[in-house]
Amino acid sequence: MTIPEFVLDELADRLGARFSTASGVRAQHAGSESFHRAPPPDAVAWPETTAEVSFILSLCNAHDIPVIGWGVGTSLEGQALAVRGGITLNMSRMDRVIETRPEDMLAVVQPGVTREALNADLRATGLFFPVDPGANATLGGMAATRASGTTAVRYGTMRDNVLALEAVLADGRIIRTGTRAAKSSAGLDLTALLVGSEGTLAIITELTLRLHGQPEDVAAAICAFDSLEDAVECVTATIQSGVPMARIEFVDEDTARAFNSHAGTDLPARPHLLVEFHGSAESVREDAARFGDIAGDFGGRGFDWASTPEERARLWKMRHGAYPACLSLRPGATAVVTDICVPMSELAAAVTAARDDIAAEGLLGPILGHVGDGNFHATLLIDPDRPEELAAAKRVAGRMASRAIAVGGTISGEHGVGLGKRAYMAAQHGEACQAMAAVKQALDPRNILNPGKMLPDEL
Amino acid sequence: MTIPEFVLDELADRLGARFSTASGVRAQHAGSESFHRAPPPDAVAWPETTAEVSFILSLCNAHDIPVIGWGVGTSLEGQALAVRGGITLNMSRMDRVIETRPEDMLAVVQPGVTREALNADLRATGLFFPVDPGANATLGGMAATRASGTTAVRYGTMRDNVLALEAVLADGRIIRTGTRAAKSSAGLDLTALLVGSEGTLAIITELTLRLHGQPEDVAAAICAFDSLEDAVECVTATIQSGVPMARIEFVDEDTARAFNSHAGTDLPARPHLLVEFHGSAESVREDAARFGDIAGDFGGRGFDWASTPEERARLWKMRHGAYPACLSLRPGATAVVTDICVPMSELAAAVTAARDDIAAEGLLGPILGHVGDGNFHATLLIDPDRPEELAAAKRVAGRMASRAIAVGGTISGEHGVGLGKRAYMAAQHGEACQAMAAVKQALDPRNILNPGKMLPDEL
Repeated sequence: MTIPEFVLDELADRLGARFSTASGVRAQHAGSESFHRAPPPDAVAWPETTAEVSFILSLCNAHDIPVIGWGVGTSLEGQALAVRGGITLNMSRMDRVIETRPEDMLAVVQPGVTREALNADLRATGLFFPVDPGANATLGGMAATRASGTTAVRYGTMRDNVLALEAVLADGRIIRTGTRAAKSSAGLDLTALLVGSEGTLAIITELTLRLHGQPEDVAAAICAFDSLEDAVECVTATIQSGVPMARIEFVDEDTARAFNSHAGTDLPARPHLLVEFHGSAESVREDAARFGDIAGDFGGRGFDWASTPEERARLWKMRHGAYPACLSLRPGATAVVTDICVPMSELAAAVTAARDDIAAEGLLGPILGHVGDGNFHATLLIDPDRPEELAAAKRVAGRMASRAIAVGGTISGEHGVGLGKRAYMAAQHGEACQAMAAVKQALDPRNILNPGKMLPDEL
Repeated sequence: MTIPEFVLDELADRLGARFSTASGVRAQHAGSESFHRAPPPDAVAWPETTAEVSFILSLCNAHDIPVIGWGVGTSLEGQALAVRGGITLNMSRMDRVIETRPEDMLAVVQPGVTREALNADLRATGLFFPVDPGANATLGGMAATRASGTTAVRYGTMRDNVLALEAVLADGRIIRTGTRAAKSSAGLDLTALLVGSEGTLAIITELTLRLHGQPEDVAAAICAFDSLEDAVECVTATIQSGVPMARIEFVDEDTARAFNSHAGTDLPARPHLLVEFHGSAESVREDAARFGDIAGDFGGRGFDWASTPEERARLWKMRHGAYPACLSLRPGATAVVTDICVPMSELAAAVTAARDDIAAEGLLGPILGHVGDGNFHATLLIDPDRPEELAAAKRVAGRMASRAIAVGGTISGEHGVGLGKRAYMAAQHGEACQAMAAVKQALDPRNILNPGKMLPDEL
């Protein structure tokens, strides 16, 4: 699109050097960690205050200019790309931890604070913010995409850990949703409506987050299984038995190979589970023993316990490095990363079907996931110069999504919709898509907020 | 209002004896468990299927006839009253547990199933549905009002335990929200939007609920404190210490007296805490010991342990009977029941201020609550024939709400807005009320769904 000259001038007047149309700057905001690509935005703004966000939005709303939120650009379904041009709001200068209230187990932060920065800030309090999608994403971006990750099985997702928001609506109005109380029955749950709305309803300018006590004791381990089925069925049995897992992660044998070549580990080329227990010394011992018994029933072996903080950090650094590790299995490849989430009883069948489908398409596509929630990912490695590989990967992703819907699951457990899953929204939600569109239309009537994302254009 | 004759005929044709305009029937749907009163609805319908709900709504929408959902009428803020006339939908005939999937820890129910009926149905599975507002409410009503209660401190509220809904929009369209997966990042969270919407956005016709494992071991106890401050500060210290309480309930000395006269107990006329622990035998012992230590620091004594299921049932039956027990403190009285919820660090001050304010107004108003969440109630006993007492009680409730807002809390932790808290919505939510109204307008443009509730008419 072309932004009128006087609008560019007004923005430059207000923001000075924090507004740019330089091509290098724009190009930095056109990338994505997965295969999604789009032209760069027309301009980039770095607001420092809610008032500036409000100013930018009301101006853009008046002139039908798209506005796209940008945290650190780690979303996997193209959520932060400016597919219809417009202005990208880079929130990195709103990176202050405004207030920490240990006695109320909450923190108030600006949206550009990353989860690692918040946890560093919290270290002395005995509290932590548990949601951990792997990437050191911003908390604003994590809220916008309803992020979850390895610890969601114990502590919930962003849905469960955002207590309140300040946000700016499309026309520049500033609203506050939620409260600092642990619960509320007063009115529509706008907090939950904005969490996961992927920047299509409002720009988040402040978050009040629920904190959790650092566990007295932590134990983590990795163990191997003979087959994917054994490993996944062990997870289902563990969850059904009620052992309170803090993390229970599956990686397949391709991912184990990727760790070996990328992280210098020496794992057998077999499926593995990575687990963690949080609690008192006594309860951790008890939970670990119960898990060990269940794993034994499914042939789990070669338990390697990470007892010190350093060993645990190594284990989870390896896990969090799975994406680059998998990419390195095929030099020069890019990835169609896709995730689905299914009811526990359907997990083994869903993972097996995905594996077989990847093989049938002749693709290399490691599978791993937060299986304690029934959530797993396939990282489909493709040569960016071979469109037939992209097409094959998209077919696999589409069939994974269709199978998830067929068994009562969801087309995305955590990566969100963005560009990549728009085509499946109607299949999952049916008429409810129209209700979502009505809500979008009510709050953003000119469709300036992240247009072209999440909801299909035609319903 | 006057419903056109031909509309009445169409409804009678379709529903037969399950549609009534008899004055006795209408009067049965004009009551409320608290002081709220309204004229009866013009008619009552008992739908048996989603298709019938859809038929009724599309007909009423076409003719601007209000529709009000009714579970068993136990809401406390007048949510189920037909303040603008219209048709009350009594959901009691949609009372089937449609499916229980223990392996996925979920149950699918119709909205007229009560929580006790569901738990009776689940007994053999080893699972239970934890949300427990005291009254044997319907699950549809509990979802509509975002109910919580004694166990929310451990298991969350209806917000956390409704996975998916089927609901009928104002114009009769049937939508499905959410999935059977443990989490989802696919689209706007319409489930959370409908939970707590008090029948103003849609009529819920099916719920998919998250179940939890029955704890291996349970222990409960009651203990007395010298002062309200000691008891409440003990709660704050307990929650801040991270002891995973399954319930932690406060009752003041008036409530203790009410139990003695109404439930035949022999409690000292002092503030008490009622607590419960869930877990393994080992963890329950450990948690109970930790709580005992903390309670000791605040002068808690006279611990009475309820070790058998029968003793525990007696303890919680007494607690759940608090409302009639308190009413019996003043024969002939009705009650202005009000609840607020504040951050934990503000709890002691909020409870003390409420107590002092009740005394200053010369009212009898026992205080009790789910204090582990920072949530407490005042049951302000008034003579229904003395308007000055109603006015005094409303002043107290209004100041409780204002103080909650001032410290970052909410005007209702669990009773909801209905009629009673409408006047405080703007003070709590500010501009966000307009966003709520825009969502309401988008989904119910003719304002037929529970009109006159929750959102103020003028914003």
